[in-house]
Amino acid sequence: MNPLAVVILAAGQGTRMRSDLHKVLHPLAGRPMLQHLLGTVDGLGAERVVVVVGTGREQLEAALAGHELTLAVQAEQKGTGHAVQQARAALDGFDGTVLILYGDTPCIAADTLTAMRQRLEAADQPGVVVLASSPEDPAAYGRVILGEGDRIARMVEYKDASPDERAVRLCNSGMMAVRSADLFRWLGQVGNDNAAGEYYLPDVVMVAAAEGRHSVAVECAPWQTAGINSRAELALVEREWQGRRRAEALAGGATLIDPETVWFSADTELGRDVLIEPNVFFGPGVRIADGAIVRGFSHLQGCSIGSGAEVGPFARLRPGAELGDRSKVGNFVEMKKARLGAGAKVNHLSYIGDADVGAKANIGAGTITCNYDGFFKYRTVIGDGAFIGSNSSLVAPVSVGKGAIVGAGSVVTRDVEGDALGVTRADQKQLSGWAARFRERQSAKKSGQ
Amino acid sequence: MNPLAVVILAAGQGTRMRSDLHKVLHPLAGRPMLQHLLGTVDGLGAERVVVVVGTGREQLEAALAGHELTLAVQAEQKGTGHAVQQARAALDGFDGTVLILYGDTPCIAADTLTAMRQRLEAADQPGVVVLASSPEDPAAYGRVILGEGDRIARMVEYKDASPDERAVRLCNSGMMAVRSADLFRWLGQVGNDNAAGEYYLPDVVMVAAAEGRHSVAVECAPWQTAGINSRAELALVEREWQGRRRAEALAGGATLIDPETVWFSADTELGRDVLIEPNVFFGPGVRIADGAIVRGFSHLQGCSIGSGAEVGPFARLRPGAELGDRSKVGNFVEMKKARLGAGAKVNHLSYIGDADVGAKANIGAGTITCNYDGFFKYRTVIGDGAFIGSNSSLVAPVSVGKGAIVGAGSVVTRDVEGDALGVTRADQKQLSGWAARFRERQSAKKSGQ
Amino acid sequence: MNPLAVVILAAGQGTRMRSDLHKVLHPLAGRPMLQHLLGTVDGLGAERVVVVVGTGREQLEAALAGHELTLAVQAEQKGTGHAVQQARAALDGFDGTVLILYGDTPCIAADTLTAMRQRLEAADQPGVVVLASSPEDPAAYGRVILGEGDRIARMVEYKDASPDERAVRLCNSGMMAVRSADLFRWLGQVGNDNAAGEYYLPDVVMVAAAEGRHSVAVECAPWQTAGINSRAELALVEREWQGRRRAEALAGGATLIDPETVWFSADTELGRDVLIEPNVFFGPGVRIADGAIVRGFSHLQGCSIGSGAEVGPFARLRPGAELGDRSKVGNFVEMKKARLGAGAKVNHLSYIGDADVGAKANIGAGTITCNYDGFFKYRTVIGDGAFIGSNSSLVAPVSVGKGAIVGAGSVVTRDVEGDALGVTRADQKQLSGWAARFRERQSAKKSGQ
Repeated sequence: MNPLAVVILAAGQGTRMRSDLHKVLHPLAGRPMLQHLLGTVDGLGAERVVVVVGTGREQLEAALAGHELTLAVQAEQKGTGHAVQQARAALDGFDGTVLILYGDTPCIAADTLTAMRQRLEAADQPGVVVLASSPEDPAAYGRVILGEGDRIARMVEYKDASPDERAVRLCNSGMMAVRSADLFRWLGQVGNDNAAGEYYLPDVVMVAAAEGRHSVAVECAPWQTAGINSRAELALVEREWQGRRRAEALAGGATLIDPETVWFSADTELGRDVLIEPNVFFGPGVRIADGAIVRGFSHLQGCSIGSGAEVGPFARLRPGAELGDRSKVGNFVEMKKARLGAGAKVNHLSYIGDADVGAKANIGAGTITCNYDGFFKYRTVIGDGAFIGSNSSLVAPVSVGKGAIVGAGSVVTRDVEGDALGVTRADQKQLSGWAARFRERQSAKKSGQ
Repeated sequence: MNPLAVVILAAGQGTRMRSDLHKVLHPLAGRPMLQHLLGTVDGLGAERVVVVVGTGREQLEAALAGHELTLAVQAEQKGTGHAVQQARAALDGFDGTVLILYGDTPCIAADTLTAMRQRLEAADQPGVVVLASSPEDPAAYGRVILGEGDRIARMVEYKDASPDERAVRLCNSGMMAVRSADLFRWLGQVGNDNAAGEYYLPDVVMVAAAEGRHSVAVECAPWQTAGINSRAELALVEREWQGRRRAEALAGGATLIDPETVWFSADTELGRDVLIEPNVFFGPGVRIADGAIVRGFSHLQGCSIGSGAEVGPFARLRPGAELGDRSKVGNFVEMKKARLGAGAKVNHLSYIGDADVGAKANIGAGTITCNYDGFFKYRTVIGDGAFIGSNSSLVAPVSVGKGAIVGAGSVVTRDVEGDALGVTRADQKQLSGWAARFRERQSAKKSGQ
Repeated sequence: MNPLAVVILAAGQGTRMRSDLHKVLHPLAGRPMLQHLLGTVDGLGAERVVVVVGTGREQLEAALAGHELTLAVQAEQKGTGHAVQQARAALDGFDGTVLILYGDTPCIAADTLTAMRQRLEAADQPGVVVLASSPEDPAAYGRVILGEGDRIARMVEYKDASPDERAVRLCNSGMMAVRSADLFRWLGQVGNDNAAGEYYLPDVVMVAAAEGRHSVAVECAPWQTAGINSRAELALVEREWQGRRRAEALAGGATLIDPETVWFSADTELGRDVLIEPNVFFGPGVRIADGAIVRGFSHLQGCSIGSGAEVGPFARLRPGAELGDRSKVGNFVEMKKARLGAGAKVNHLSYIGDADVGAKANIGAGTITCNYDGFFKYRTVIGDGAFIGSNSSLVAPVSVGKGAIVGAGSVVTRDVEGDALGVTRADQKQLSGWAARFRERQSAKKSGQ
């Protein structure tokens, strides 16, 4: 295929989001919507990527650091045609296909973009390839009126459309493919003689037609062209995205008892015969191996779960949690930057951070790795087969050797050697009758109140 | 506008609820349904409010304590017309507009009631102003057949309606506005010559017509007239209520990743750029400032969350929890009647009750304020910048001074002065080889079983 | 009624499940789908039950241990007619009605099966009683074309159906009732002269007709005939099952604030005036008495909750948890094999396993029963009215007597007598200025980095 450049328009004000965060940086499935788009574009091997920004440039620059692309600034809001013109300098010397996309329309699929490129290259006297879709309710979108085959007879704004034209469901998505050799010549002929005084990108279709060039429509599924202008629309697109991802998970061999209560991130990886109970939230970066079980009310992010491992209910796995095969993390347990060896168990009410837990080790209920002194973080190392008694505090840096036992309620500040018992414990005292006397006294006070 | 009196009918048996609790006291969005109605009525400046009760009078009296209103009793269930007549004594001497509402129809909006009052006052020879709506599925509701304009030609019960009348979607909600000067005269002429032997309130429209008075319909959205007769209907109305509240939250600038899994109460207040992950439950009395984050699986009630603060996942904030700006409450943490200073952190597995935590203090995992001795509650005070080691127990009343440190696993029963280290800890002992011998012995026992 | 035999076909490969678990063993509402079917069949008093299996026989044998039934093996996949023939030996000598059901169609109701039996017995010259339903979207199911009354004129595969036949919504479920005296004779006449070379069970209707026997259709609700061939279909059937169960719960007098976020198991039992907040998961074996409250984010299994008791939010009750009347289990509490006496409280952050807690005992936050030494489990006994201080560890086997108090942070290894105070605690030390010096040192290190 011909060389490719991509122009992404992201200069809209986004006022309906009512947010201090730039619209295209609001996350969808745990990833800023612009990143979804860039991820898709990355797969196409574009020579140049230009993002046209208006307000909030600094936010975008920070977010885009590390991406090979050019930011072009549209200082004044003079319409989409004007916005694309701001990319002219960045495309200087480029010869090939230009795809024009939108930062707030993040769901477009790579296949569709490829189909647009191919259609442009297949044309004899190519005009514009317009991406269109047929939503269930086409509402007030501009309509695409086809002539012969996929050839566009005309495009009409909803407000200018006749009843017959409104009955057409094919709508203009705004996305298009056009030869770089034509793009800016045509844009130069687009006027702003309209109520808003703006330069409209779709008008290039008319300009192209005036040169005898035929524009055509490529159609895709409506969810690919859904734009996000408000948080309600963001929630709807998120819902649709999750629906597709859930269907994929089911088809791939995972059981989701109630799919509508499992939230995936864009990069969640699930093995086969994985069971997921209702109410599991996958933040970015989770990988789950075959046959693992994630019980309900679990919140996972940046972690890997080994084959046959069991997690939850009420588990909180944070970045860097690595669970070995057949290991178990039970209820009210938090893990971060911690490795759990094969078959190891942390079943209840524990915080395991900055730690390395050996195979088949058993961490008792209420165990806490004291990894932070207010300034630095320190590591805890627990050997294979060690047994940590309940309610223990392991004050890092500290290690408990293989096969060692730590007595319940201990505060371990020095290393415990392998196969040893380590314990801190004061003697148990009993004051007979004390509780009875205390009750009497307090009852008296209470009734005296 | 003319003086206003409101009669609320709440004398139905509510048998379909299958409950010992009076039907109108079942909560909707965390507030008894009758309270929703009274809240709406409060805003209208009514001179008198009369609630007509049947069974369960004691429950209603207890629930309504503090409200300025009169309870009238309908001892026998003789129909809605008869129920309104029980309000006669309470309205003695009142001259103005009477609104008749229903305790089990709690969603009626103030605007609608005002529109009814205005319509009554605008009429020349006023009959009754009937509130109507056009539900998607009008089912077996009584139909309102209009004549000219909004004038009511007749009202028919579904069972008596002709096919043409059944095709009409406008339904009688039962709510009405009528002049006090007319109400009881007309009610006196309503008969009970029907299968049930009951006095039907809607019959006043006929009686008014016989006097040459024209009744009219005011129409509102169907959700405002939804009545609740069973727990299934309660769940449906709750669902609709939540849907409207979620849309408001999104429009106001909050991100709800999955709006359908966020439950609001009637008085929840949300700032701008608030992020709410899936599965957050807001009980009554929650206020959240701008830019705060509430992670999933959090259960909040009667608390305030400062600007930029982070809560959850798995946080439980109970009444009296006050979180300062940029403070953090992490997973498996419960707070009640406790203030957290700006930038303070309680990140894991803690119970903080009856406490005052200073700015930038850091409360380690597993910290518990021992606030209760079985009889009385006591307060814990933690100074700015203090650092409480993990698994510590703070036995209240007790204070930890500014900048002090409490060693991990300590049981603090006496005050710790500022900048000091406070610690209780027994020596760590090590018994070499003990764990290996223990394992051998227990293994032998186990295989001997 | 006549004697009954049931043949359950469970020989499908289930490849679309993408699972190592046999398709009919995937759980629906917490119980393997085949068990649902067997539960229904159990109620009919069948003399013989035959399950026809293909692959995965060992899994089925293990799962069916304890059921009185015969496994018949279909070694080759030669169609449903061939599958039923494999039951011939197991039905040798049986004379009565044979019901043919499907292991992956678990929702069929007992009433429907009884109606099929009765219809067969009522017939003069009985052919086959075919179970049919009229789904909203009949899709590509085979259609049942009726003649006079419920008599079947013919059954057509969708692909062979004329447009008129496709317009018929009545679909063949595959389930049927037929006399044992006829079944195998007719099956013997079914051929495999079709594209797949398979013997199709529905062809017996044609064979019966050739003998002059009239087959008839019994119709049931479509959800009863929903088959499960993929995890997506399993999720759909689960959703429908939950929807029916939730409606039952509401009708029975339970309040579910958001019914769609409450998941029941097949055997969940709920009392009247039970309140269930959003997000409660009922695993198998839960029983809840009148007036109990289950707050959100609770995960219950194999437990009983007494009248007026309160559970959650964030409660995890595992098998063997028994909560007395008016007892309370609060947030971040796990219980298993533990009894809680009337009015006892475990309000926060505790693990209570293998324990017996007396009436009105109060278990402080962070209490842990240390019930496991890596080899054996031991019991903890806590007397009536005892008070366990926060962050205590009770090292089982151990007992705390009636009315005794355990001091906060204690590790109790020996029994505490009734009315006594038991405590283990080291002296509290204070090092003035230590924290200030520590901060200075660490700050220096940090800035030196």
